[in-house]
Amino acid sequence: MFPYKTSFTIDRKSKQALYLQLANQFIQLIKERKLVPKTKLPGSRALSELLNVHRKTVVACYEELILQGWVESVPKKGTFVNANLPELQQQNFDLNKAALSLENTGFEFYKNEDLKRTFFKPKEGFLYLNDGISDARLTPTEDLARTYRRICSRKNIYKEMSYGSLFGNEKLRITLADYLNKTRGLNIKKENILITRGSQMGIYLASKLLLQNDDCIIVGQTNYTSADTTFLQRNSNLLRVSVDVDGLVTDEIEQICKQKKIKTVYVTSHHHHPTTVTLSAERRLHLLNLAKKYNFGIIEDDYDYDFNYNHSPILPLASHDTHGNVIYIGSVCKTVAPVFRIGYLIAPKTFVNEAANQRRFIDRQGDALLELTFENFIKSGDLDRHINKVMKVYKARRDLFCRLLKENFSDFFSFEIPKGGMAVWLKLNDNYSWKTIAKTARKYKLEIGEWQRYDNANLSHNCIRIGFATYNEIDIYELIRRLQLTFDDIEN
Amino acid sequence: MFPYKTSFTIDRKSKQALYLQLANQFIQLIKERKLVPKTKLPGSRALSELLNVHRKTVVACYEELILQGWVESVPKKGTFVNANLPELQQQNFDLNKAALSLENTGFEFYKNEDLKRTFFKPKEGFLYLNDGISDARLTPTEDLARTYRRICSRKNIYKEMSYGSLFGNEKLRITLADYLNKTRGLNIKKENILITRGSQMGIYLASKLLLQNDDCIIVGQTNYTSADTTFLQRNSNLLRVSVDVDGLVTDEIEQICKQKKIKTVYVTSHHHHPTTVTLSAERRLHLLNLAKKYNFGIIEDDYDYDFNYNHSPILPLASHDTHGNVIYIGSVCKTVAPVFRIGYLIAPKTFVNEAANQRRFIDRQGDALLELTFENFIKSGDLDRHINKVMKVYKARRDLFCRLLKENFSDFFSFEIPKGGMAVWLKLNDNYSWKTIAKTARKYKLEIGEWQRYDNANLSHNCIRIGFATYNEIDIYELIRRLQLTFDDIEN
Repeated sequence: MFPYKTSFTIDRKSKQALYLQLANQFIQLIKERKLVPKTKLPGSRALSELLNVHRKTVVACYEELILQGWVESVPKKGTFVNANLPELQQQNFDLNKAALSLENTGFEFYKNEDLKRTFFKPKEGFLYLNDGISDARLTPTEDLARTYRRICSRKNIYKEMSYGSLFGNEKLRITLADYLNKTRGLNIKKENILITRGSQMGIYLASKLLLQNDDCIIVGQTNYTSADTTFLQRNSNLLRVSVDVDGLVTDEIEQICKQKKIKTVYVTSHHHHPTTVTLSAERRLHLLNLAKKYNFGIIEDDYDYDFNYNHSPILPLASHDTHGNVIYIGSVCKTVAPVFRIGYLIAPKTFVNEAANQRRFIDRQGDALLELTFENFIKSGDLDRHINKVMKVYKARRDLFCRLLKENFSDFFSFEIPKGGMAVWLKLNDNYSWKTIAKTARKYKLEIGEWQRYDNANLSHNCIRIGFATYNEIDIYELIRRLQLTFDDIEN
Repeated sequence: MFPYKTSFTIDRKSKQALYLQLANQFIQLIKERKLVPKTKLPGSRALSELLNVHRKTVVACYEELILQGWVESVPKKGTFVNANLPELQQQNFDLNKAALSLENTGFEFYKNEDLKRTFFKPKEGFLYLNDGISDARLTPTEDLARTYRRICSRKNIYKEMSYGSLFGNEKLRITLADYLNKTRGLNIKKENILITRGSQMGIYLASKLLLQNDDCIIVGQTNYTSADTTFLQRNSNLLRVSVDVDGLVTDEIEQICKQKKIKTVYVTSHHHHPTTVTLSAERRLHLLNLAKKYNFGIIEDDYDYDFNYNHSPILPLASHDTHGNVIYIGSVCKTVAPVFRIGYLIAPKTFVNEAANQRRFIDRQGDALLELTFENFIKSGDLDRHINKVMKVYKARRDLFCRLLKENFSDFFSFEIPKGGMAVWLKLNDNYSWKTIAKTARKYKLEIGEWQRYDNANLSHNCIRIGFATYNEIDIYELIRRLQLTFDDIEN
């Protein structure tokens, strides 16, 4: 007979019920073919004595195994391992080999090397340059968490907790329509809003609706790289036009339109990403006229509308659009914090409806509790107060950062002081290389992480985008000090 | 001269600064060509007197307009409307027509009619049948909100608030690996986990990695319709096999594999969606053997692992997989509440890495604060306590619901009492039609919303899936009463 007594381990301290412990060990023995099909199992009384457990435990174990189909009960004959069970060829008793299955698949799948990006893991004591990220330390986390909890205490909140609207919470859409109409000069209704997870989902959905194989999209020669990659994943035909001090060169867009059908133009009109320049009034009107004439959509990514230091925010293209050409995308991720994935896609209703249908298959719906939290944050005026507060901080940081750069590195860099946003576009003199600088900087615990990202069109422009908003005054002085050490090292 | 005095409205009570009010009205006049290019604007002193505002206000207004590019300053000559501004052909002064742009786009985009689904809007006093959704009233909302707020008060929480891991919060991944190893018999590490937004994102990402044009996927003849739609969106070749009382008929899968290359099989092994049957032990082993032999991936969607009333949960296919064939997908959306979009995709590391790269372009990252909240909820044992609590409730509801159905409708329906899950698969006798029943039911304020969804392979099986978990005892009696009225009406 099979050595039942020595084959089972019973742990009376485990949280798992005894009958389940037994059942799972039976399954393992059957899978390993130590108990082969048709094997007769001991009677419940006999097994209970062998294993020193209550007979009811064995009965429950056998019932479990029958229900799961591992064993079968034959009336008047007893309990047998299921005769039809195939041998599991999966089972790999070499544990080292089994561990390999945690590494590699037993099947093929599609990989896209273009999606890879190196994220630097923060090392102890290092300062990291980024390409323009808000300072998480300024987030009104406690206020938002308090609101979140208060919303969760509402009597009828359970109504928001099941499957809900594909478009996002209705209250937020109403409040946001009102807020955007007031602050951006839009003239929209809640039906024109799809609440997304940050701007990225807006770009993703817009590209799904606009681009299929070989459809043409126009972007800047320098452009936000995540947008480029999103469009290229649609197998689209990505055409590039120049970017100068007034933003995208719209004359070049017109030339292309005369030659071929354009589906869409992607533009970061407020501060071009990465160069930070603003699209001029003249070009704004020209671009809108072209969109109307050639029937293309404009994806206007207004990622940093709120941050202007020299003048008021410039109204987006969407505010001048009366022919339904603009898809306007924004979020609170730059304004409040990236962890709060609340964004929006604004467009004519037919477009928003289709985007919502698509969104159902990505993640079904948003987070109604967080959406209500931000509804409250916007409506109460807290968002505007927060923007005013951090804008002063970021302006001071921009001024300090740019002054120190100018004072210390004018032999190496040139740059324009950005009128808004969170980053500077820094041109390195041609006789230096960011690659060498980045390598040397590591000696001084400075990681210039983003230097290689902004030349996707191979222009050799020798520029990088460096954010200043994340760093407080102490950080900025320290950052400049390490940059000085780096250049001293390179010069000597 | 242009009638400046009557063309501007100044609202001293508005929150908007006066200079901005002026500037925006200037922009509107320029856009409307009431002020044409090259028009000389009045001097600041003259305009300030005309409009009865401080001269500094006008100076600030002009500076704003210059910065934005609407006007230009010519030294010693004055301020002029920018000579190069094109006429905005967008502008539509017929307000009724302008409103149309909120409805329809001025460009073409791709629509997919297959994505549409009618969501019934709850009407006052109506009872709605769903296809198996948890009862939001049982959600431990206050506990979770309290934890959320406590996490937000942690001293270093700001470190979690910026751009973070594509894979999800590391603490949650560690805790979840441990939890799934203990409860599902898996043997994974945190590197095998991608935190997703609910199961749907897991299905979406897996389908992106596995399916391109014409790749073959096998599903059941009845199947979870959202999964079907997700796969079809990849333009895949969707092949169907029969589903009987033991789940997917794996012999049919084998026959297909002998004829053509299969990329993947989608299976809801625990309780087949929609029929609720469990995949038998025999078929589990067979399917795993086929996956190994023919090198395909198994997408195992374990959407209701936690709810078993007759026996313990059955270990998933993933627990027997030692050759890296299974992609295991689950979430807390059924267990806790759909509003909490926390799910997971478990697979060999190479697959998880690629899925994370793809996820970056969908919504960048998850919600670290919510992820930490659930990390706490799982680790503290609160999740298990919650499951035990609601399972008793749902079991009682299943028993009552099935008993009342059997007692009152055995002439009309047949069904098996489900061993687990939140729904019953109800077969209507052939001489009745769900369409008629649904129509009649509305007279009695009963909405049978989901009756038309589960015959995507046109089998004319005359079955629907009705959830019982959402309804408390009072609801269930009322629901049965309205169903009785409906059948009385049909019979008379």
